[in-house]
Amino acid sequence: MADAEINQVPPSEETKAEGEETKGPSKSELKKRAKEAEKAKKAAEKAAKQAELEAQRAAAEDFATEFHGKLPLNQSQTRPRRPRVQIASLNPNMDGQTVLLRARVQTSRAQGNKMVFLNLRQRIDSVQALLTVTPEKVSKQMVKWAASLQDESIVLVEGVVKKSPEIIKSATVGDVELHLSQIHLIAGLEGRLPFTVEDAARPDTEIETNEEVQYKRVLLDTRLNNRVIDLRTQTNQAIFKLQHGIGHFFRDYLDAQGFIEIHSPKLQGAATESGASVFKVSYFKGSAFLAQSPQLAKQMAIAADFERVYEIGPVFRAEDSNTHRHMTEFIGLDLEMAIEEHYHEVMELLDSLFKHMFASLRETYKNEIDTVRRQFPADDFKWREGPEGTLRINFRQAVDFLVEDGVPREVLDDINTENEKRLGRIIKAKYDTDYFIIDKFPMELRPFYTMPDPEDPTVTNSYDFFMRGEEILSGAQRIHDPTLLAEKMRSKGVEPESMAFYVDAFKMGCPPHGGGGIGLERVLMLFLKLNNIRRASLFPRDPKRLEP
Amino acid sequence: MADAEINQVPPSEETKAEGEETKGPSKSELKKRAKEAEKAKKAAEKAAKQAELEAQRAAAEDFATEFHGKLPLNQSQTRPRRPRVQIASLNPNMDGQTVLLRARVQTSRAQGNKMVFLNLRQRIDSVQALLTVTPEKVSKQMVKWAASLQDESIVLVEGVVKKSPEIIKSATVGDVELHLSQIHLIAGLEGRLPFTVEDAARPDTEIETNEEVQYKRVLLDTRLNNRVIDLRTQTNQAIFKLQHGIGHFFRDYLDAQGFIEIHSPKLQGAATESGASVFKVSYFKGSAFLAQSPQLAKQMAIAADFERVYEIGPVFRAEDSNTHRHMTEFIGLDLEMAIEEHYHEVMELLDSLFKHMFASLRETYKNEIDTVRRQFPADDFKWREGPEGTLRINFRQAVDFLVEDGVPREVLDDINTENEKRLGRIIKAKYDTDYFIIDKFPMELRPFYTMPDPEDPTVTNSYDFFMRGEEILSGAQRIHDPTLLAEKMRSKGVEPESMAFYVDAFKMGCPPHGGGGIGLERVLMLFLKLNNIRRASLFPRDPKRLEP
Repeated sequence: MADAEINQVPPSEETKAEGEETKGPSKSELKKRAKEAEKAKKAAEKAAKQAELEAQRAAAEDFATEFHGKLPLNQSQTRPRRPRVQIASLNPNMDGQTVLLRARVQTSRAQGNKMVFLNLRQRIDSVQALLTVTPEKVSKQMVKWAASLQDESIVLVEGVVKKSPEIIKSATVGDVELHLSQIHLIAGLEGRLPFTVEDAARPDTEIETNEEVQYKRVLLDTRLNNRVIDLRTQTNQAIFKLQHGIGHFFRDYLDAQGFIEIHSPKLQGAATESGASVFKVSYFKGSAFLAQSPQLAKQMAIAADFERVYEIGPVFRAEDSNTHRHMTEFIGLDLEMAIEEHYHEVMELLDSLFKHMFASLRETYKNEIDTVRRQFPADDFKWREGPEGTLRINFRQAVDFLVEDGVPREVLDDINTENEKRLGRIIKAKYDTDYFIIDKFPMELRPFYTMPDPEDPTVTNSYDFFMRGEEILSGAQRIHDPTLLAEKMRSKGVEPESMAFYVDAFKMGCPPHGGGGIGLERVLMLFLKLNNIRRASLFPRDPKRLEP
Repeated sequence: MADAEINQVPPSEETKAEGEETKGPSKSELKKRAKEAEKAKKAAEKAAKQAELEAQRAAAEDFATEFHGKLPLNQSQTRPRRPRVQIASLNPNMDGQTVLLRARVQTSRAQGNKMVFLNLRQRIDSVQALLTVTPEKVSKQMVKWAASLQDESIVLVEGVVKKSPEIIKSATVGDVELHLSQIHLIAGLEGRLPFTVEDAARPDTEIETNEEVQYKRVLLDTRLNNRVIDLRTQTNQAIFKLQHGIGHFFRDYLDAQGFIEIHSPKLQGAATESGASVFKVSYFKGSAFLAQSPQLAKQMAIAADFERVYEIGPVFRAEDSNTHRHMTEFIGLDLEMAIEEHYHEVMELLDSLFKHMFASLRETYKNEIDTVRRQFPADDFKWREGPEGTLRINFRQAVDFLVEDGVPREVLDDINTENEKRLGRIIKAKYDTDYFIIDKFPMELRPFYTMPDPEDPTVTNSYDFFMRGEEILSGAQRIHDPTLLAEKMRSKGVEPESMAFYVDAFKMGCPPHGGGGIGLERVLMLFLKLNNIRRASLFPRDPKRLEP
């Protein structure tokens, strides 16, 4: 209130200011002004009276003013503790019950001036509501007001649950509808929606095949610029429930295996791993770097006897790659563990972890997966669940598969993205699986901390995991011997002295260990086949996007 | 092997190089040289023979060469799949069983040349092991070798579990000991330990009160410089199990309340919240800023209909404060939720969350809490568990308490750290609780997005939570109306246009909501009374520390 008052200049001061400007008006001028003022006053009085009368008349007609309208800004004025329900909980057994709920108006459709249908939405659930003119309960004005609500308005409605005579296809809860007795606006919109949530949720197939209607296609960039609206689609609500699920099942499984969660610093004194593609930060009078992965910290945690650790946190890559599967910031699901005998202990634990995640997602989020499918059609994600176990091949075999398929061997020192996908298709055709492991990568493709194979020093004890032909995990046994580590660092052009704190950690005794890093958004994208990693990130970051 | 060969220059080339330098030696010179070479060759042959004989003699005497010694570098050569046990699982019922385990040698103590005691450690558990000369099984050489192992060496031991005649106080598993039959070195040390793990684990009280022994006090900075060694203390192993626990119980509770976990970007296009104390990042050709909190993102998630969200992730503060409770990077446990009627819904949920975390920590980590207590003595953390509920006072009452206690009212516009602690002591004395809530903070102390009280615009719908007199959570109802938000931004000197993406999120309809942010390390520090926040962080970062 104080702020509003400051803007009002008291009338007396206004007059004074005006008087100062001239020498003062003539008498006749003053008379004229007084007459005009009197006239204006009378007109105003008349208008006010008229308005009052009209309002009285309207109020007399509208017996339902209490049952609709805009609520005052919720500043927690009252707390009646009246229970509100979730749309998802509505069902035919509640027939006849009066319920109260807060929801978005997804769409509204008036039928004449006596009835309006509202599609009410909460997250991935929606229900049809109906407001009909009823003597002493629902006025014409109330129906008109409800019909005028902008899409995406947030309302508080009271209504009676009614079993619907037939399934309402436009709602996810289709076996009931709500017959409204009250509807109030909690939060409206200021301005126009950049696109409707219905348009944003439409599958490409529907846009392409429907010849009668010219639907608006909402481009990815438009969506991301207005991410808050885009995220409201039932598809996105479902996608991020699955993202939550992946993290949950990851921890779930590892907690049961004796792991503890760690949090390692993202601010580093030295550029980690290689020096390339690291973001530089101004750090007081000096500078710092953003961690490219928790690699060094999690290995140091092993040297510090934590035995089995995992971390879920952001990793930063200053790579200027504008592809469907790169972001400058993403969430790493990282783990590291001491090895007793052989690095396949780690590889097998990771494999079991993935199978646990896949099965749990399918089981827990059936409804959400179906919701996503409606916008992004895809085959079910397939993995080998039988006793034959996950398909594992060595890097050399993978190369042979590609050569057999017609790729020239000369280009296969590394397997690029395109050939990765090709390999995925070959393996899918051969073994009917979307998930497999490649073991024994060549030394030149892996970072300095990778343990060489005991017999063939040109290959390493390292592996990648794949989903639908794209890499989602990279891992290995690490070098725990400081002498061999320093030697490998030098051979890859890294001065051991520049990372003394890291090399030193191994000088004080470190058990053999291995681990891996999983890209959360990649797993989500590939499990659901979303085709672009940005769809799997709440507010994605790439070389060209830092907002919202 | 290839690398080693490169360093060896073949003898023929060496001779050649030498020859090139001079015009060539004289005949007599050559004769002399040949004679000397012959002599040297004979001496070498003799020495070699001698060494061989000695080795044969030693081997003949040492029938136990197979049972001890250094293992080759574990590059995953073999996988015998022989089960290894955890020290924690050893118990008197296993008397007579042979077990295999990997552990650190915490200390060793030889008794004459026939026996050595080893204290073996795994994380927070330790057991005493004994190696005694035994015909055909344990040789003198084997005992000598074992006694020579450096502290902190990692060994693989085989031994028989024996019920101990009396409880061994120096070990956590004191009712059994291990009679070793084999001991091999998995990883040794290169150089000397900066301090022993025993010294690092000693409580200050013991150092101060023991007059007979002059213990080495390991200073915090020395510990942090050598954090990998410091973290090996049983105290630190326990502290980070509790850190894991806090995160686990946080998620556990919120998952059950219908929250989903989100991951918001740490890289921001604009300086968040106020512009002060934000780290700047070079971002390709422009710049970015590190998020000071997930505040904006989690509110946008509410505008995007996620209803209830939480995040566990790093937050960055570019404040040059070198205190016991500030770090430049720490882990925020953040949550945000839609409000139905009143912001106390959020405050009460947060309160229940804390009580769930406290009770679960006490129940699940009794052993770990006791372990930490031995080094950091403290009273049990107390909270009101009865039906009277958590103590809640308004900011004004808190000020009154301090005034009653003698603090001049004039200085209490804000409550500084010192007075916070004083308030903690007052409340502890009055109400016997280490945990309480202060509600209704003055407007001038809170950020622009804080919802004003509906009746008194000088105070807000905001609260802080306290543990042992230190703030551990700050939260509030937020402004969800874009007009009021823009007004408050301007009044706090923030241009709404500079954060258009954030203000816009509320223009498209956002439900009333509130939340809070918890400092993970603070909760851990205060629950255990560690007195310095760095002890609650794996690799702490402050204005002067970016490593390790």
